[in-house]
Amino acid sequence: MSTSARPLRIAMIGYAFMGRAHSTAWARVGSFFVVPAFEQRVLVGRDAVGVEAAARTFGWSESATDWRKVIERDDIDIVDICAPGHLHAEIATAALAAGKHVLVEKPLANTLAEAEALADAAAAASTRGVVSMVAFNYRWIPALALARRIIADGRLGEIRQVRASYLQDWLADAAAPMTWRLRRETAGSGALGDLASHAIDQLQFLLGDLVTEVSARTHTFVTERSGNDGAEPVTVDDAVWAGLTFGSGTRGSLEVSRVATGRKNALSIELFGSTGALRFDLEELNELWFLDATEAIETRGFRRILVTEPEHPYLAAWWPQGHLLGWEHSFVHEVRDFLCAIESGTPASPSFEDGLAVQRVLTAIQSSAAATGASVTIGSVQASKETV
Amino acid sequence: MSTSARPLRIAMIGYAFMGRAHSTAWARVGSFFVVPAFEQRVLVGRDAVGVEAAARTFGWSESATDWRKVIERDDIDIVDICAPGHLHAEIATAALAAGKHVLVEKPLANTLAEAEALADAAAAASTRGVVSMVAFNYRWIPALALARRIIADGRLGEIRQVRASYLQDWLADAAAPMTWRLRRETAGSGALGDLASHAIDQLQFLLGDLVTEVSARTHTFVTERSGNDGAEPVTVDDAVWAGLTFGSGTRGSLEVSRVATGRKNALSIELFGSTGALRFDLEELNELWFLDATEAIETRGFRRILVTEPEHPYLAAWWPQGHLLGWEHSFVHEVRDFLCAIESGTPASPSFEDGLAVQRVLTAIQSSAAATGASVTIGSVQASKETV
Amino acid sequence: MSTSARPLRIAMIGYAFMGRAHSTAWARVGSFFVVPAFEQRVLVGRDAVGVEAAARTFGWSESATDWRKVIERDDIDIVDICAPGHLHAEIATAALAAGKHVLVEKPLANTLAEAEALADAAAAASTRGVVSMVAFNYRWIPALALARRIIADGRLGEIRQVRASYLQDWLADAAAPMTWRLRRETAGSGALGDLASHAIDQLQFLLGDLVTEVSARTHTFVTERSGNDGAEPVTVDDAVWAGLTFGSGTRGSLEVSRVATGRKNALSIELFGSTGALRFDLEELNELWFLDATEAIETRGFRRILVTEPEHPYLAAWWPQGHLLGWEHSFVHEVRDFLCAIESGTPASPSFEDGLAVQRVLTAIQSSAAATGASVTIGSVQASKETV
Amino acid sequence: MSTSARPLRIAMIGYAFMGRAHSTAWARVGSFFVVPAFEQRVLVGRDAVGVEAAARTFGWSESATDWRKVIERDDIDIVDICAPGHLHAEIATAALAAGKHVLVEKPLANTLAEAEALADAAAAASTRGVVSMVAFNYRWIPALALARRIIADGRLGEIRQVRASYLQDWLADAAAPMTWRLRRETAGSGALGDLASHAIDQLQFLLGDLVTEVSARTHTFVTERSGNDGAEPVTVDDAVWAGLTFGSGTRGSLEVSRVATGRKNALSIELFGSTGALRFDLEELNELWFLDATEAIETRGFRRILVTEPEHPYLAAWWPQGHLLGWEHSFVHEVRDFLCAIESGTPASPSFEDGLAVQRVLTAIQSSAAATGASVTIGSVQASKETV
Repeated sequence: MSTSARPLRIAMIGYAFMGRAHSTAWARVGSFFVVPAFEQRVLVGRDAVGVEAAARTFGWSESATDWRKVIERDDIDIVDICAPGHLHAEIATAALAAGKHVLVEKPLANTLAEAEALADAAAAASTRGVVSMVAFNYRWIPALALARRIIADGRLGEIRQVRASYLQDWLADAAAPMTWRLRRETAGSGALGDLASHAIDQLQFLLGDLVTEVSARTHTFVTERSGNDGAEPVTVDDAVWAGLTFGSGTRGSLEVSRVATGRKNALSIELFGSTGALRFDLEELNELWFLDATEAIETRGFRRILVTEPEHPYLAAWWPQGHLLGWEHSFVHEVRDFLCAIESGTPASPSFEDGLAVQRVLTAIQSSAAATGASVTIGSVQASKETV
Repeated sequence: MSTSARPLRIAMIGYAFMGRAHSTAWARVGSFFVVPAFEQRVLVGRDAVGVEAAARTFGWSESATDWRKVIERDDIDIVDICAPGHLHAEIATAALAAGKHVLVEKPLANTLAEAEALADAAAAASTRGVVSMVAFNYRWIPALALARRIIADGRLGEIRQVRASYLQDWLADAAAPMTWRLRRETAGSGALGDLASHAIDQLQFLLGDLVTEVSARTHTFVTERSGNDGAEPVTVDDAVWAGLTFGSGTRGSLEVSRVATGRKNALSIELFGSTGALRFDLEELNELWFLDATEAIETRGFRRILVTEPEHPYLAAWWPQGHLLGWEHSFVHEVRDFLCAIESGTPASPSFEDGLAVQRVLTAIQSSAAATGASVTIGSVQASKETV
Repeated sequence: MSTSARPLRIAMIGYAFMGRAHSTAWARVGSFFVVPAFEQRVLVGRDAVGVEAAARTFGWSESATDWRKVIERDDIDIVDICAPGHLHAEIATAALAAGKHVLVEKPLANTLAEAEALADAAAAASTRGVVSMVAFNYRWIPALALARRIIADGRLGEIRQVRASYLQDWLADAAAPMTWRLRRETAGSGALGDLASHAIDQLQFLLGDLVTEVSARTHTFVTERSGNDGAEPVTVDDAVWAGLTFGSGTRGSLEVSRVATGRKNALSIELFGSTGALRFDLEELNELWFLDATEAIETRGFRRILVTEPEHPYLAAWWPQGHLLGWEHSFVHEVRDFLCAIESGTPASPSFEDGLAVQRVLTAIQSSAAATGASVTIGSVQASKETV
Repeated sequence: MSTSARPLRIAMIGYAFMGRAHSTAWARVGSFFVVPAFEQRVLVGRDAVGVEAAARTFGWSESATDWRKVIERDDIDIVDICAPGHLHAEIATAALAAGKHVLVEKPLANTLAEAEALADAAAAASTRGVVSMVAFNYRWIPALALARRIIADGRLGEIRQVRASYLQDWLADAAAPMTWRLRRETAGSGALGDLASHAIDQLQFLLGDLVTEVSARTHTFVTERSGNDGAEPVTVDDAVWAGLTFGSGTRGSLEVSRVATGRKNALSIELFGSTGALRFDLEELNELWFLDATEAIETRGFRRILVTEPEHPYLAAWWPQGHLLGWEHSFVHEVRDFLCAIESGTPASPSFEDGLAVQRVLTAIQSSAAATGASVTIGSVQASKETV
């Protein structure tokens, strides 16, 4: 439901997996949340026929093939970038320069240099009232938003040790074919940029803290796969492991994989503090497990909180208690907060700076892995030398 | 995405909880499934201001307050009835008489007599190509659709014993106030019509079989609640228990409650057969547990199937594996099947006859409860005597 | 470790499954608990060779074949009866008459008349300082002892609704052969006496309340099995369902089965009160799930209490936290409490009266099942007419 | 039950936590397994009064205070060493030299040099028929023994990625006092020797493979604790993280902690192979989760195997299906296998060489941690330089 007379007009670039997810979020947010008026004005893609069909299917008024022209249009207020990562920098830079509010899919960019430039551009644009945001959508899973609230309330005390893993298995089959995602030149990295980026942002968000140092390893289990022209080398990682130190002293571990047979989309997070602990698993995303270590020992235990009460983050807008939300609802909450930030003129979160903070950790992980696991301090790597 | 030139135009009556759920299903189905073209034409409600706002919020072109006039309109093809249960009979009868396809929320009606009349009317209308369906939406939870497929494939062998429970706790607080749902004259019954109806339809659907006999009990734990004029008696049940016999000899048990402290929306089903077993819990609705008793005993166990693969029912339309769906997706699948039945001219399922079959069991449960649990045969109760 | 100079000398009758469980409890209790001194003096069985070997294996000083003579021996203080149920009455009556303390396996007897006579005999003997106890061992599972403590502390408020099920599958295979357990004349009943008795005692123990009325059904799924002389009819139940009313108004449900494919020893209990709830499953017997409904809704949920802390019942005697106990430990705790009751001269619990209370419910269940589920009040059935 | 005329006579040294666990295993094994005849002859401890009481409580015929004299006795055949780790080397060396069979608690020794010497001594003694074994008891948890069997049968295919964590929280409370376990000079290390040793042995056992290289980190969260003379520095680690490479190319991760609030004894293992996966958690030790990736995708999922069937390792000796075993049962199985190895004259497993293999990994972990996580190859560290 809109509260504003003049609608914000959106252009979205890209209409694959993430494009579908964002489209459905735009299409739904107004039915469940009070947001400023907006219009799904134009969907942009390279293939004129495909993008026209997608626009019709997902409720965009028009379609177009040249994103540069769309960004220049006066009737566009918001640019939502769902194009592949190596295009983020160019598109987002142009959009910010044109004074558009920008929502960009994660990761912010494929290289640290690009991410730094984008963060600078976003900071400059914000002084002109331009809002920018990186779409780390898991921040809007209600259970994780609740986790953040519990932590911010101090219920865990001093958080000492955290664990994050993100396990998938779509590459477990050695016969799965070669794709652009398995080539370094197009994908930048493998599970690192794809999965570790989510986990790192989530940890930094939950802790309200930044990684300052890493020790890491990467590995490719299936080193070649059959492509169109026969066997082709896989040039990105299948799995990544990292030890993390945060600014406040919290120690963390990270493990991500795309060959973890039987695990489908298992982002798992555990946080251990001096007075409490939390656990979350994306394969049961409506649940948060909380242990309050100040309870009497006799009745102490991890509580399974079914995060579907009206008192829980974002839930009052949806259904009665016990009616589960799905993965895609995170995107509805995401665009809700983005629209509200634009309306209120306040910075959105996660900012491009937050996206850059993730990129710095990814880069340090690659440096450490190249040094057989020796510690690398965040920021010690020159953007000009990194390769992610 | 539509495949038909002339769109089907829908009128929906009612815009409360179920109205919102159906609206969002209509709004989404075309983005994810190939269905005949349709339009959300008119939303009907008693309060002109409220229904107009709701129509705007949920994407209906118009709003109206008189359902009789809407049903008579030539430009309406489908009537979706989300009004309270005591209105189902009158509206659905009129809609069928007017040659409209009818989707009606569960339970089909508040009385057995009404349900019988509706089933007759739907059967007669179907000879004229009119499609009717009762919205027992849990049939479209992918995990339960998969369960049905596994059973139909004979993987459980002879199914001997089944258990269903549906536990909620929104009435556990004795201070919760009086509402129309707790008065017999408006609600017909309590947990019986609200929760047991879902469980019974689901069992009959999964087994492909009908209940033939019951032994049942009901109870009201909180016998009065504070209303506008002070304490008022609660005249419906808080909980129901029933033993069930099915036509094939399967024995079942049923327990439903709205005072089960800590259980939010826990529809739980277990089926035990001679060669396998299944378990499902709506609080973890993306999972189905299957035990294949023909496996070697050493590695036999209940498998947790995460029902998110493209090979699973309805899933290919959504997201990659491991990305969970929510409760409301069941409605998208429901209207997809309804639209496809209309397009193909085939009967929809569950039919009004299926809805009547549930009503017969509910009625027998009340008769048995009135007889302190003594067995009652389905069909032995005259519609003229029943009270549900 | 013993605290008493003159050891109590034990005779145990029977050395099958329960005999092994009791033997190992006697053999271990002194190493972990402070109990009066005792000796495993004599093991009694019908087969002289078999019982002699068993005595040696399980640490009994002697073996014997005539229980009557053993009971008459002056050097025997305690008689532990692990013989089949139809022998309980005769042996226990004789032992009580001889002034021996008596521990008898559950169920107390196969008939209500026997149970009543035994309860009378035990009451009379107790005036002479004789201690008697029925071995409903699940009372000594620490998680269930903790549940009782939580309930006694009032943490659940008014307990409204309880659910118990005990599901096994060792008869799911229709090819499993005929045994004495499947004949009414030897076993009395099937899942009823075997499994329902445990569940009923546990509910009465946890609630501190008695069942006053039941409505029940029984069923035999596999009606004949192959015996030594070909197919033979099964004359006991495979499964039982019952609705229960307790004295305080609590309503309960009970379901037991030996054909629940995939469930091995699944005694599951749920209790829903006005201010809290509990859940337990014997297949994860070190865990108790507790929901405190007075917690803030935002962080409310069922807590998984790992019942292995020194503060938990019986745990201080064992291992450090997190080191799981097994099923058989319940028997160690059982004989510990029995020995301590003898030493302190206080009545043991569960008493024969408690065993009789279970028998009354079993009998009422059979009466109700014979009346197609119609309600039967506890105590309304004459012992002379019952058949369990 | 013994099968041999001349009993093996055992001396056990140490009677604290592990001494109790071993004692109860010795006391029980003969009642459940066919083993050579043996006697619990003498218990050895420093405190004459304490050891005498412990001997009586746990069924040892005698007690003694001088282990050297006991080892020299002709009537002793087996020495079971439950003394603290820094004494293992001296006692075990003497016992082997005296021709005794030796069972030694884990870890084999506190230093690599000691472990190497012990492995050499055991190898030499084995040529004279002397059996030696390290008591990594988790190998005898039936679920883990079953896991090994499934892996050996090739059900996982090529095992690519494994994860082990062992999380406890008994040091989470910063007010917990100083103990000898937190001083490097007495304990050698913290969670490393205590917990990581278990996890490493288990991984090497399950994979049938050895770690060849590590990258590791350690950390102490609570750096001083109050001792008898005020605050005292903690000189061992609270937590350890390591990346592991195995000989066959399998990659692993390891995380152990004693400050993981809410986790009590959580040894968790996951193994991901090309055709299957396994999961285990010591807090639910009767369960093994197995995914067979060759199953049809539609019904594929992790199976919860309740490892209580007679077909499962060691289970036929115990109770009927579904009756859970506890943590301590692993020790019964352990001494059973040790006794059987002695009787059959075959080497026992895990051998001192296996214990040394663990020690090599622990040492490499410390070296890598000292090098900020840089990779260290197993065997590259000189025993003379290590410090564990």
